[in-house]
Amino acid sequence: MAVTAAVAGASGYAGGELLRLLVQHPEVEIGALTGNSNAGQPLGALQPHLAPLADRILQPTTVEVLAGHDVVFLALPHGQSAAIAEQLGDDVLVIDCGADFRLREEADWVRYYGSPHAGTWPYGLPELPGAREALRGTRRVAVPGCYPTAVTLGLFPAYAAGLVEPEAVIVAASGTSGAGKALKPHLLGSEVMGSMSPYGVGGVHRHTPEMAQNLSALAGEPVTVSFTPTLAPMPRGILATSTAKARPGVTAAAVREAYEKALAGEPFVRLLPEGAWPVTGAVYGSNTALVQVALDEGAGRVVAVSAIDNLTKGTAGGAVQSMNIALGLSEELGLPTIGVAP
Amino acid sequence: MAVTAAVAGASGYAGGELLRLLVQHPEVEIGALTGNSNAGQPLGALQPHLAPLADRILQPTTVEVLAGHDVVFLALPHGQSAAIAEQLGDDVLVIDCGADFRLREEADWVRYYGSPHAGTWPYGLPELPGAREALRGTRRVAVPGCYPTAVTLGLFPAYAAGLVEPEAVIVAASGTSGAGKALKPHLLGSEVMGSMSPYGVGGVHRHTPEMAQNLSALAGEPVTVSFTPTLAPMPRGILATSTAKARPGVTAAAVREAYEKALAGEPFVRLLPEGAWPVTGAVYGSNTALVQVALDEGAGRVVAVSAIDNLTKGTAGGAVQSMNIALGLSEELGLPTIGVAP
Amino acid sequence: MAVTAAVAGASGYAGGELLRLLVQHPEVEIGALTGNSNAGQPLGALQPHLAPLADRILQPTTVEVLAGHDVVFLALPHGQSAAIAEQLGDDVLVIDCGADFRLREEADWVRYYGSPHAGTWPYGLPELPGAREALRGTRRVAVPGCYPTAVTLGLFPAYAAGLVEPEAVIVAASGTSGAGKALKPHLLGSEVMGSMSPYGVGGVHRHTPEMAQNLSALAGEPVTVSFTPTLAPMPRGILATSTAKARPGVTAAAVREAYEKALAGEPFVRLLPEGAWPVTGAVYGSNTALVQVALDEGAGRVVAVSAIDNLTKGTAGGAVQSMNIALGLSEELGLPTIGVAP
Amino acid sequence: MAVTAAVAGASGYAGGELLRLLVQHPEVEIGALTGNSNAGQPLGALQPHLAPLADRILQPTTVEVLAGHDVVFLALPHGQSAAIAEQLGDDVLVIDCGADFRLREEADWVRYYGSPHAGTWPYGLPELPGAREALRGTRRVAVPGCYPTAVTLGLFPAYAAGLVEPEAVIVAASGTSGAGKALKPHLLGSEVMGSMSPYGVGGVHRHTPEMAQNLSALAGEPVTVSFTPTLAPMPRGILATSTAKARPGVTAAAVREAYEKALAGEPFVRLLPEGAWPVTGAVYGSNTALVQVALDEGAGRVVAVSAIDNLTKGTAGGAVQSMNIALGLSEELGLPTIGVAP
Repeated sequence: MAVTAAVAGASGYAGGELLRLLVQHPEVEIGALTGNSNAGQPLGALQPHLAPLADRILQPTTVEVLAGHDVVFLALPHGQSAAIAEQLGDDVLVIDCGADFRLREEADWVRYYGSPHAGTWPYGLPELPGAREALRGTRRVAVPGCYPTAVTLGLFPAYAAGLVEPEAVIVAASGTSGAGKALKPHLLGSEVMGSMSPYGVGGVHRHTPEMAQNLSALAGEPVTVSFTPTLAPMPRGILATSTAKARPGVTAAAVREAYEKALAGEPFVRLLPEGAWPVTGAVYGSNTALVQVALDEGAGRVVAVSAIDNLTKGTAGGAVQSMNIALGLSEELGLPTIGVAP
Repeated sequence: MAVTAAVAGASGYAGGELLRLLVQHPEVEIGALTGNSNAGQPLGALQPHLAPLADRILQPTTVEVLAGHDVVFLALPHGQSAAIAEQLGDDVLVIDCGADFRLREEADWVRYYGSPHAGTWPYGLPELPGAREALRGTRRVAVPGCYPTAVTLGLFPAYAAGLVEPEAVIVAASGTSGAGKALKPHLLGSEVMGSMSPYGVGGVHRHTPEMAQNLSALAGEPVTVSFTPTLAPMPRGILATSTAKARPGVTAAAVREAYEKALAGEPFVRLLPEGAWPVTGAVYGSNTALVQVALDEGAGRVVAVSAIDNLTKGTAGGAVQSMNIALGLSEELGLPTIGVAP
Repeated sequence: MAVTAAVAGASGYAGGELLRLLVQHPEVEIGALTGNSNAGQPLGALQPHLAPLADRILQPTTVEVLAGHDVVFLALPHGQSAAIAEQLGDDVLVIDCGADFRLREEADWVRYYGSPHAGTWPYGLPELPGAREALRGTRRVAVPGCYPTAVTLGLFPAYAAGLVEPEAVIVAASGTSGAGKALKPHLLGSEVMGSMSPYGVGGVHRHTPEMAQNLSALAGEPVTVSFTPTLAPMPRGILATSTAKARPGVTAAAVREAYEKALAGEPFVRLLPEGAWPVTGAVYGSNTALVQVALDEGAGRVVAVSAIDNLTKGTAGGAVQSMNIALGLSEELGLPTIGVAP
Repeated sequence: MAVTAAVAGASGYAGGELLRLLVQHPEVEIGALTGNSNAGQPLGALQPHLAPLADRILQPTTVEVLAGHDVVFLALPHGQSAAIAEQLGDDVLVIDCGADFRLREEADWVRYYGSPHAGTWPYGLPELPGAREALRGTRRVAVPGCYPTAVTLGLFPAYAAGLVEPEAVIVAASGTSGAGKALKPHLLGSEVMGSMSPYGVGGVHRHTPEMAQNLSALAGEPVTVSFTPTLAPMPRGILATSTAKARPGVTAAAVREAYEKALAGEPFVRLLPEGAWPVTGAVYGSNTALVQVALDEGAGRVVAVSAIDNLTKGTAGGAVQSMNIALGLSEELGLPTIGVAP
C-alpha cells in the first residue's frame, strides 16, 4: 500500500524537486500540495516542468490540509516547522527541509538565527557514522543544509580517521537555485550569468555552525570552520573545496585508504578513481555525491573536493533518502543516481 | 524476461542519453557498449554522469560485438548504419539515431549528403498520423532529427487540418549538445557562453528536407521550408518558432481546436493552456514536448512554438519511445515526463 | 568646451550603459544622474561596474535636476518623456531611449500602448536613408527599440533595393538585459540559465509596429511583420533572423550587391565576408552591428541575420551616435567598435 | 610619435585582448601580428570581435617579423620567449605574457615546468611595493599569471602589514578563457555550461609557486600556499578567496586600515566599501581589481576576496599597464576601468 505524502512549500525550488522525485517514487502517492502566497493556483503555472501534476491546485499551508498523510515534507522558511510538526502528531513522519531542527546547541541557533531554538531532530545525512540507526523508524527528520551536505561528505572521512587538525577552511560554489525563488536584484539572470560573487563571508553564513557541528562530532573535539560561499552562474550544483591541515606523518596513501574505507558501499557517494575530479554537471538532477581527495604535501593540507546537486542530494533527494530509511524501505528507492548531462 | 540492448556510439552525447534512459528502463538490460576511438576505456572516464555504468568497458563498433542483442541502437555518424544493419539480421530491432534512413526521396539524400541513399525505414515520430501503426512490430526505426522533431510537433496540427499555406518559415535555437562532442573552436565554452550565432543559413541545413517531407505528407502537397538554426548558450534544448501563412478565413478558435484535437491524448506532447508558452528549461532531461500556437491576425500567420530536449525527445527518448512501440511494450515505459528544473 | 550631459534613469541597464559610454566620450562631461526609487543612493551601490562614478549620488528625476545640461538622456519607462522634454526647452538636446516618440501613426501607438500618443521625433537610426539629415542639428531624438535596430539593419538593404515582398517573418533572440532590472520570476538566473523561451508571440510585441514602420518606408508600401522575440540565456545581445520572400528573378548576386552598396562606408555596420555569420559574442559592449544575408533558393526567401549588443548599438550606443550627429561631432566619437570577447 | 607594438600569438585569447586594448591606446600603433598555425589568415576570421583589424593578415612568429617595433608582446606557450627576446635586442621593450620569466628560484621553475629556467624579469604587478620602480625604464617585463594577480592583490596588504601567519589557503574560480583556445573535451560549451569543476588540486597548479614567491617577499619569510583553482561557467573573470590565519591580537579595524592604506591611490584596485563584495561581472573587460576583506573571528582568519577579469587585469591589461610605466607614459593610459555590465 502506497505511502501518502504532502509537500508544504510546493511552489518553491525545494518543493518542486521533492515533487519531481516523489512522482517517480514507486511507493509514494502524492497528497496535498501547499503554498501560501500561491494557494489556489494550479501547479502547472508555477512549476511548468512538473507536467504530470500540472492541474493540481495549491492549498494553503495549514495543519488541516497537511494532516492525514503518512509523510509531510516541510519546505518552508525557517521558524515555521515546529508549530506545524507539533500538531501533526507523533505518528506522522515529518521531514523538515529547513534549518529549524538541525543544530544541537541552542547558543549556535540563537547566534545565527536570532530566534528561540525549536529543538533538534535526527539528522538526515545517512552517510555519517550512526546516522542510519538514528533515522530508522524515526518520525522526525532534519534534512541537512545543502552546503553542509557537500562539505561533510567531503571531509568526514578525514576527520573520522583522525588525519587532520581541527581547523577547516572551506570555499564552496553554489548554483543560484540555492538562493530560492526570492525576487532579489542580485539573483536576476542579467546579474548572475557570466559572473561570480561571494556572500556571507567571514563566518556569518548560517550553514557554518552546522558544518562545525558535524565535523566536531567526528573529530571528538571542537572544529573551527572558515566558510566562504560563492554564487556561480549555473542553476544547480555545489562544488565544495574543503581543506584542513594534515596531522604530522599523514601520507597520501593513508588519506586514500581512509576515504575508500569510509565511503565503501555508500549507494549515493562515489569516491572517484585517482586522477579524476568531481564535476557538478555530472550530478545534475542526481542524488549522487562525487568526492575526491588529495594530500598537498607542500602546503601540508588535505584537500577534499565534493560535488552534489544542491536540490537533489543537497535537499530533496537527501530528504527522500531519509524517508526511505525512516519507513523501512530500501534506501535507494526512487532516487536517481545518474545525472542529466551534458 | 528483459530485452537486451546494445548501444553503438556510447561515448557521444546521444549514446550517453540512450544509456541514461535505458538504465532506468524496467524492461531493458544493457549489453554491449561500443565506441571506436574510445574502445578499451571505461565508460566512467568518458561519461562521468553515468555512475552505475562507470566500470563498463567500451568495445569496438563491430557487428560481432553488436550481434546477439534484441535491440541495437546506432548513434553513429551518418553513412555507417546500413552495413551494420544488414548483417545484424531481420529479427534484431535496429534503431538508427542517425540520418541514414530518414529521407524517402533519393534526390533529397544525394543533394544534402552527397552519398548514395541507404533507403528508408519506418519513421520514429509516433505522434504523426499513421506512424504508430508503421512502428508496431517493426525491426527497423529511423529516429527523426532533433530539429524535425520539434518543428513537426509544432506544425503538424496546422497542416493536418489544412489551416496553412505550403510555405513554412522556421527559426530554431538549439543547445550545444546538438552539435555533438566534436572538438571545434566555435563549440568551446568560451565562445558559446553569452553568445548566439546562426549556422546552415539559407536552406543548407540537412534537417531541412526532413521537415519538408513531414509537412508535405500532412499537407498533401509540397511544402517549402525556410529553416534557420541557431546555436544557443545552453547545453540542451530546442526552441522552435514555426510559422506559416494562414489560409483565408482561418480563425484563432479554429487553430486552437485543431491543436487540441491533434494533440489530445499524446503522452509526450503537451499543448499548454492559452497564455502560457513553452520554455526549454521545463523539459530538461524529459521526453515531453511543450507546444503553443497563436494566430497573428496582423501578419496573417499561424505561429507555433515548441520546446523539447534535443537529446531526450529529440534523440534518445524518441528512440526509446519507438522501441517501446516496436516491441509491444507500453509506449511510456521508462521515459521521464518531468524536466529537471530549474 | 565639453558638452554636459544628464542621464535620467541612471540606475537601470540602459542608464548604466549610457554612463559607461559617456565616461569614455572625449567631449562629454557627465552632469546629473537621476533615478526615482533609488534617489539618494551612491551609484556604486547600484552599478558596481561604473567604478569612476561610484561616489556620485542619484538625484530624483525632476525637470529642475535635469535642466541646465546641453544634453539630457531619458532612460525612463514609456509615458514620462513628453512632460519632461516640454519643460526642458528647445535648446536642450533631449534623447529619449524609450518608446514615446518612435511611432509616426497615432493609431499604432494607441493600439500597442493604450495611451495618448506623445508625438514623433527624428528617428535615431542614422543608417537609414535620410536619417542623418534629419538628425543633424536636431534637439530631439527618438532612439529606436533594440529589436527594430537589429531587424532594420538586417533587412533595410533588401527593401531599399526592392528585392523582397512586403511580408517579413522575423524571429529574434535577446539577452535578458533587454527586459531590464524588473524583479520578475521568469527573469531570475535560475530560470533563464540553460533555457530559452518566447514571449509576445503573435504580433503583440510593441516593437512590431516600429519594424513595420521602418520597412514600409523603405518599401514604399505597407509591409506586414510577423515578429517573435525569444529570451536567451545571456546577459546581452540580439540575434535577429529576418526573412522575406524574394521577388521573382532576384539572384544571390543581386542580393549581395544590394547589401554591399547599402552598407558601404557605414562605421557601425559590418557586412561580413561571404561564408561568415554574425555572432552576438563578437559585439559584446560594441556599437557594431554584424550583418550577413543569403538567398534561400529552395524556399525562395532572402534570409538576413544581424547581431548587435542590445544595450550598446541597440540603445545607449545608438543614442550617443545620434547625439554626435545632432551636435555636429564626429559620428564615431567615443563609441567602441570592438567587442569584449570571448 | 606613436609607439609601435607587435603582438606574437595574436590568434589566442590573450593576444586578442592585447589587441582590443592596444587599438584603443592613444600612443600605440599596432604593427605585426603573428600566429604560427594561423599564419596567412586574416584576423577577422579568427577574432571576429576585432572589427577594425579584420583585414590584417597574421604572419609567422619569427624574430624577423617581430623586429623593428618599439614594443613586442609575447603571448606564447611557455618556453618560447627567451630565444625571441635574446635576438630582439636590449632596446626593444619585450613584455612576456607567459610564465618563462616570472619565477626567481630555478628550483621552483624546474619542479613545476620540468625544463631549464630562462631567468627572471621585472615583475609586472605595479601594485606590489617596489614594483613600479623596477618597471620604470625596463626593457623586459614578466606579466604575472592571472591567478597570482588576483590572489596577490587580495592578500598583499595583509602580509605587508604583518597581520597573518605564513600559511595561505586559496580557492579561486576562473572563467574558461583562462584555459585558452585549446580544443579539449572538458572545455566544450556543452561540458562547462551549468557546471563547475576543480583542476590542479593538491599544489600542482603552476601558479602556486608564483603566489608563494609574492607573498613570501612581503612576509619576509616563506609562505606556504594551498591553492585550488576551479573552472566556472563563464567566459571571463577570476574570483579568488584567499585566507590566512590572523596573528594574535589582530582586529577587524586593523585589517581594514591595512587594506585602506595599502590600496590607497591605486588606479586599478578598488577596495570596496564595507559590506560590499567583489563581483566578477563588474570588471568584465576592465582593468580594475575589486577587493574586500573580513576578519572571521570565529575561525581566526583573514578572508580576502578579489575579482578581476583574467584577460584584462589578469593578462593583457596588466601587460599594457606595465608597458605604460616602462615607457614613461601615464600608467592609466588606454586602460578601461569600467566593466561591461550586466
